[in-house]
Amino acid sequence: MASPGELTLHLDEALLPDGIRRDVTLRIAGGIITDLATDAAPAPGAERLRGLTLPGMPNLHSHAFQRGMAGLAERRGEGTDSFWTWREVMYRFLDRLDPEDVQALAAQAFVEMIEGGFTALAEFHYLHHDPQGRPYAERAAMAQAIASAAAETGLGLTLLPVLYRFGNFGQAAPAQGQRRFLNDRDGYQRLVEASRLAIAPLDDARLGLAPHSLRAVATEDLAWLAGLDPDCPLHIHVAEQLREVEDSRALTGRRPVELLLDHVALDQRWCLIHATHLSGEERDAIARSGAVAGLCPITESSLGDGIFDGVRYREAAGRFGIGSDSNIQIDAGSELRQLEYSQRLRDRGRALLAPPGTSTGVALWQQACAGGAQACGRAIGRIAPGCRADLVTLDPDHPALLGKSGEIALDSAVFAGNALPLSTVFIGGRKLVGEGRHHRREAVRGRFATVMRKLLS
Amino acid sequence: MASPGELTLHLDEALLPDGIRRDVTLRIAGGIITDLATDAAPAPGAERLRGLTLPGMPNLHSHAFQRGMAGLAERRGEGTDSFWTWREVMYRFLDRLDPEDVQALAAQAFVEMIEGGFTALAEFHYLHHDPQGRPYAERAAMAQAIASAAAETGLGLTLLPVLYRFGNFGQAAPAQGQRRFLNDRDGYQRLVEASRLAIAPLDDARLGLAPHSLRAVATEDLAWLAGLDPDCPLHIHVAEQLREVEDSRALTGRRPVELLLDHVALDQRWCLIHATHLSGEERDAIARSGAVAGLCPITESSLGDGIFDGVRYREAAGRFGIGSDSNIQIDAGSELRQLEYSQRLRDRGRALLAPPGTSTGVALWQQACAGGAQACGRAIGRIAPGCRADLVTLDPDHPALLGKSGEIALDSAVFAGNALPLSTVFIGGRKLVGEGRHHRREAVRGRFATVMRKLLS
Repeated sequence: MASPGELTLHLDEALLPDGIRRDVTLRIAGGIITDLATDAAPAPGAERLRGLTLPGMPNLHSHAFQRGMAGLAERRGEGTDSFWTWREVMYRFLDRLDPEDVQALAAQAFVEMIEGGFTALAEFHYLHHDPQGRPYAERAAMAQAIASAAAETGLGLTLLPVLYRFGNFGQAAPAQGQRRFLNDRDGYQRLVEASRLAIAPLDDARLGLAPHSLRAVATEDLAWLAGLDPDCPLHIHVAEQLREVEDSRALTGRRPVELLLDHVALDQRWCLIHATHLSGEERDAIARSGAVAGLCPITESSLGDGIFDGVRYREAAGRFGIGSDSNIQIDAGSELRQLEYSQRLRDRGRALLAPPGTSTGVALWQQACAGGAQACGRAIGRIAPGCRADLVTLDPDHPALLGKSGEIALDSAVFAGNALPLSTVFIGGRKLVGEGRHHRREAVRGRFATVMRKLLS
Repeated sequence: MASPGELTLHLDEALLPDGIRRDVTLRIAGGIITDLATDAAPAPGAERLRGLTLPGMPNLHSHAFQRGMAGLAERRGEGTDSFWTWREVMYRFLDRLDPEDVQALAAQAFVEMIEGGFTALAEFHYLHHDPQGRPYAERAAMAQAIASAAAETGLGLTLLPVLYRFGNFGQAAPAQGQRRFLNDRDGYQRLVEASRLAIAPLDDARLGLAPHSLRAVATEDLAWLAGLDPDCPLHIHVAEQLREVEDSRALTGRRPVELLLDHVALDQRWCLIHATHLSGEERDAIARSGAVAGLCPITESSLGDGIFDGVRYREAAGRFGIGSDSNIQIDAGSELRQLEYSQRLRDRGRALLAPPGTSTGVALWQQACAGGAQACGRAIGRIAPGCRADLVTLDPDHPALLGKSGEIALDSAVFAGNALPLSTVFIGGRKLVGEGRHHRREAVRGRFATVMRKLLS
């Protein structure tokens, strides 16, 4: 898709890096904000956006195909259900998917992301091969499916091809259910190059690199992978489950984050997905490094992972962003709310992730935008010159927002609606959502319905 | 409002007391289900409801006016925020409300409840007097406002006039912010009688009685109040906050639930709201009594109350229902999801509130309907002859439900949408919601907007 031409917008209110300001005029060219003025009269020909406009939220972690299995793993077994029994359901679900299915599932997830306030995505992509575990003739066929879904829906994409080699710590053999994920180093390098070509037609997409987890790669793979491209964002799952921490200690003598710190120079390139179970030292080391903690509050609730210690991490100036991960539910506001609520349930206080004297909604939105943008490795997450024009406008006529403006409008959007009450979404200067509906909603849902009926039949 | 005449519905699927059945025909007269057949061909003239129909969910705890302050208390103060600082914001908010305001706020909350799958409500009503603390000339003016909102929106009402006398355990003097709540026994009896008249015009409403909490009444008020009407449901706030438990121990030598057990014969008439902080003995005593634990998972998250031990309580066969309480967010599916997720975050497992081998969505819906119906003291919460025709039909065309039926549809409705994806709601045989919208949505929102602009100006 070509970028749109020039465009001028007049925002009644906007969340800028220094806070909420009124009467903001944006000039946009080639998808980028080129000029910004505050307290300005509407420019001639400017499109006016009523209500409060936010920088679009980056979604820093997703497995798009899992949108198709939302709700399929909520039946209790005869024993004890856990992340690990859920993973078996997930392996059985993905075993039937071909690239066309993945494209349909991803497009549906992406429409829901955009309608839920997410304007960019880091897709943690590990489903590479055919159901027998053989590479497709077109090695990046699955990556192309993701790229096509992003192209159709307009979502800004950071594609993270995932290196997956082993079944557990200590280079254990992979399980049967993991055969579609596997590559050796050579296969991975070819996948990365094919993925680079797959996203080339997209407007402003980029590539990142991702060792799946300390379970799934050798520790010496970490530095090797980080060296493949010194500019790429690097994402890894870490310390999501207590059993993972226990396995790591039993098999390596180290906790997962300790192991990571032993083998890489953790810095701003890295995004540590989950990082749920941290010692105080690990938590502070991540905060000091400038890396981003990739929190997925709804999925971490759904999977029974546990509660990330956001309170102490924020006090240590740690960076974080949010991801929709399993996509069992998709909404930027709901992720932030669940993040804050999990802290409240544990610490039995309120407004725990905001600095004193600030709005929780504003603090959560700004921090998650900054962390998400860093993790996606793109100039997004701020309404400012030089950044992509990714804009989410709240609906001032929604019951949760009536009569409200400023910080209270954002607090209400995050806490007082079931989903973020938005009216309009621009991505890269393109208006993709009006009156809360993505312009491709019906077409995408139709193909999703066909695939779901096939999968569930 | 008069009850509608006779009506026949054909449900593609329905959640009946013994599970999900196909092709269910209901005959309804005077708002009540009179006949039910399964595996039946559509009767001539029957209205067909596509998808899965559930018994409407009772909402067993609400302070309707608080819908107007949703989002106004999320700004962090300079110190530590808590339930108690939130309560100060709430007292300042309600200090400006007159009965007309309360009616507009309540009608908005009730429309959102019905659109969120709640078809009945136990309104815990403590805002009685004028801003100076004087009874209105019409003593139940505020109760009339609630009743009028229920009449307009069609929500089934159990009105609970609240007895509020003291500021804390040990009969401490009430605070200035509590002056609109206060009654002595004589004033309360007059309020109850006036409230009975206020709800008389409603179709199938009923009255309950409610000592606010062990903080706000004398222990000897409990048996007195329970004796005022031996058939009424009895509701009380209990053990929501740790400080409340500590105050109770310091001032009475007993924990709040111990105190309650000392002074009343706890039985099926009682609904214990929150009951968050229980000893094992208290938990088992409530479960044995047949009383209902009135859980408000979203509010208990928002206020930082803590996590109710639903896992051990369910194992002890304890009864529970759900309430939207502060109404910061209104949706039956979201309440059930947050209840289950809080258990998962604490215990780090999955499917924790379902018996082995059952669907979590079905288990949660059935248990909360049964507990909610008992707490409301009305023949609701089941699709069965003799029960009110309170019916919530899921939207089979919603992305979360495409291609799904049976238990998976309900699991997906609860876990895979931001709000319960419903199409149609009947209450007492009246169709109030079609295509997800309450027929009074716009009119009610208009009055709500006017009140919100006044309050926030």
